[in-house]
Amino acid sequence: MNVDLALRDGFGRPVTFAPVSRVEAHIAAHDFAHPTLVMDVDAVERQYRALSAGLVTANGKQAHIHYAVKANPHSAIIERLVALGSGFDVASRGEIEIVLGQGADVDHVSFGNTIKKASDIRWAHGVGITLFAVDAEEEMVKIAENAPGARVYVRVIVDNPEADWPLSRKFGCASDKALNLLGMARDLGLVPHGLSFHVGSQTREARMWTGTLDQVAAIWHRAQDAGFDLQLLNIGGGFPAFYGEEIQRPTAYASAVIRLIEERFGDVPHIMAEPGRGMVAEAGCIAAEVVLVSKKSEDDLHRWVYLDIGRFSGLAETEGEAIRYQFATPRDGDDTGPCVLAGPSCDSADVLYEKRPIQLPLSLKAGDKIIIRNCGAYTTTYSSVCFNGFPPLDCVVI
Amino acid sequence: MNVDLALRDGFGRPVTFAPVSRVEAHIAAHDFAHPTLVMDVDAVERQYRALSAGLVTANGKQAHIHYAVKANPHSAIIERLVALGSGFDVASRGEIEIVLGQGADVDHVSFGNTIKKASDIRWAHGVGITLFAVDAEEEMVKIAENAPGARVYVRVIVDNPEADWPLSRKFGCASDKALNLLGMARDLGLVPHGLSFHVGSQTREARMWTGTLDQVAAIWHRAQDAGFDLQLLNIGGGFPAFYGEEIQRPTAYASAVIRLIEERFGDVPHIMAEPGRGMVAEAGCIAAEVVLVSKKSEDDLHRWVYLDIGRFSGLAETEGEAIRYQFATPRDGDDTGPCVLAGPSCDSADVLYEKRPIQLPLSLKAGDKIIIRNCGAYTTTYSSVCFNGFPPLDCVVI
Repeated sequence: MNVDLALRDGFGRPVTFAPVSRVEAHIAAHDFAHPTLVMDVDAVERQYRALSAGLVTANGKQAHIHYAVKANPHSAIIERLVALGSGFDVASRGEIEIVLGQGADVDHVSFGNTIKKASDIRWAHGVGITLFAVDAEEEMVKIAENAPGARVYVRVIVDNPEADWPLSRKFGCASDKALNLLGMARDLGLVPHGLSFHVGSQTREARMWTGTLDQVAAIWHRAQDAGFDLQLLNIGGGFPAFYGEEIQRPTAYASAVIRLIEERFGDVPHIMAEPGRGMVAEAGCIAAEVVLVSKKSEDDLHRWVYLDIGRFSGLAETEGEAIRYQFATPRDGDDTGPCVLAGPSCDSADVLYEKRPIQLPLSLKAGDKIIIRNCGAYTTTYSSVCFNGFPPLDCVVI
Repeated sequence: MNVDLALRDGFGRPVTFAPVSRVEAHIAAHDFAHPTLVMDVDAVERQYRALSAGLVTANGKQAHIHYAVKANPHSAIIERLVALGSGFDVASRGEIEIVLGQGADVDHVSFGNTIKKASDIRWAHGVGITLFAVDAEEEMVKIAENAPGARVYVRVIVDNPEADWPLSRKFGCASDKALNLLGMARDLGLVPHGLSFHVGSQTREARMWTGTLDQVAAIWHRAQDAGFDLQLLNIGGGFPAFYGEEIQRPTAYASAVIRLIEERFGDVPHIMAEPGRGMVAEAGCIAAEVVLVSKKSEDDLHRWVYLDIGRFSGLAETEGEAIRYQFATPRDGDDTGPCVLAGPSCDSADVLYEKRPIQLPLSLKAGDKIIIRNCGAYTTTYSSVCFNGFPPLDCVVI
């Protein structure tokens, strides 16, 4: 296929008005039998470098990035991040196997899930992992028994009403318990290494970290006052991606977060950050297809547009219409109208956007290609194995 | 392992008080490295026979069951249903391949998804499928072009506020459009074969079908008055499974539904029913494990109980706490207390029951086995490929 990638948009039409991403150019030049996520690993590298450039303290200390593997565990992404010196935040034995398989150093791997089977802790410790998250007594006992002498950081609960997607109370312990857990670690022969928290997914601007950091700093200082020599502040994720609402760019964002931390914590020996979405979301687009456009009744004001991808084949984060993806079609420029967007399965819950319909070209019809932008995070792995007989989301890394 | 299955409960304890299911006995006799759905294919056969026995009209005509493959497409279940003479409702090319692979007759396969790619319609028609669902003009054109001469049934929208889980407006057309679509089918050389609808998932008692049947019968009679010689009434699914609230048993339920249909439709040439959940849900249990029990704060009234299975590894139907599964543990009989139940992933949305906490033994702890009952439908296929590095739900058929 002879396509001049620099001069075509995502649908192969010549463009002169704007540079087109490598990903959209790739989609233009290829046909896909099934919905496919196309990832640009060079874009991941640029984002890693941009975040790293901001994650530096005033006295020149580099905070260490531990990429949240769950966002996108594709081997080519892990391989590139290993080469760049990234660390990894892993949720399971399966993710540890992935990162070690790509050559990650065990000293750069943190077992960040607070919910771990005893057998998985034992296995992880056996391969050399020495850093574990914990938020409960029973978990601390499991770690002490299965990873004796390991370093642990206690995850605390913080409230952040400013995040686009505030986390539930599923992870972390309240402040009254944090110091007890640090003491318990010491008593059980573990190293009470530090604290972690999560500001909330998709925290769009650095200033939104303020309230959270105030709460964590209070616990940090109380722990220091109680004699704990804390070494690690794990600031978790929350780094945003662009989904239509303005966000601060990565270097400025990371730098501003570090300033806020320094103001509250003073000189922290080691800061760790765990971007997942903020590392990979903008590096990928999904190539999809319109399967049907219809109206339910002759006098309906809006159309239903059905795609070949839905909530159970990659777009799980549209649950509650939380994440609002951006769409591009070969008919952009035509008149638009509101439509309900839904997936292809025989499941009435497989609807992407209904409460807030989206605008799409009125000329859109079955068979049209559609590009879903900034889908690099939390798509492939959420995909079901074969719901309704549809294969899981493919992923191609360019 | 020497276990007398007839005298053990799901945890291997001797029981004398009640017969234990084959599934729970199997779970008692085995260890599972990962969460595993255990299905009893004989129980599926019993349910098929019970539903069939009820799906008979007063003049002795047998309504035909088309099992909704999406509920559980395991090959051993399909194979058994083929042997029993069941038909199949399929959602995709993938499901057609599954049922034909187990020997299903193409004349017993209905392509029931109203959202189909043109290429999949063409492929299905090529292998011999001649019966298709439709609810929109664009879909009708695709069928006429890719499956010329096929029989089509028009899916209509009905409102049923009585279902436990009313369906959205995703599928079907309003009554004003139904007759237009039947006419369009005839004009395009297709056979306007009948109507279909869905009463809503988990419609617990037959009497709850009344309002829906009234609406569909009105359309049916209008179509007849307009000269359409309708042959097929596809009554869809909605057949319930036991999730803690009382339901009518299958033969009585099916029989009562048929009576309601006869009262409203008169003599229908062919009635088709598409039980999915109602066929397989009660034939399977999931063997799972408690990973962590904790409190967030010293003075919390309830505990958090984390399992090794969650919303993204098989229990998707707990979304919105819609389906409330039943649990059994080796500590049943001990004092109980309320708990929030959550999955093992690092995803704050991976919480099963929080608004209405469930009662579990206070003595429950990490490592305990837990049986989740009546999980035979809509679990394995909803499971994500590897979210957080966790493998998808296993399935064993006994």
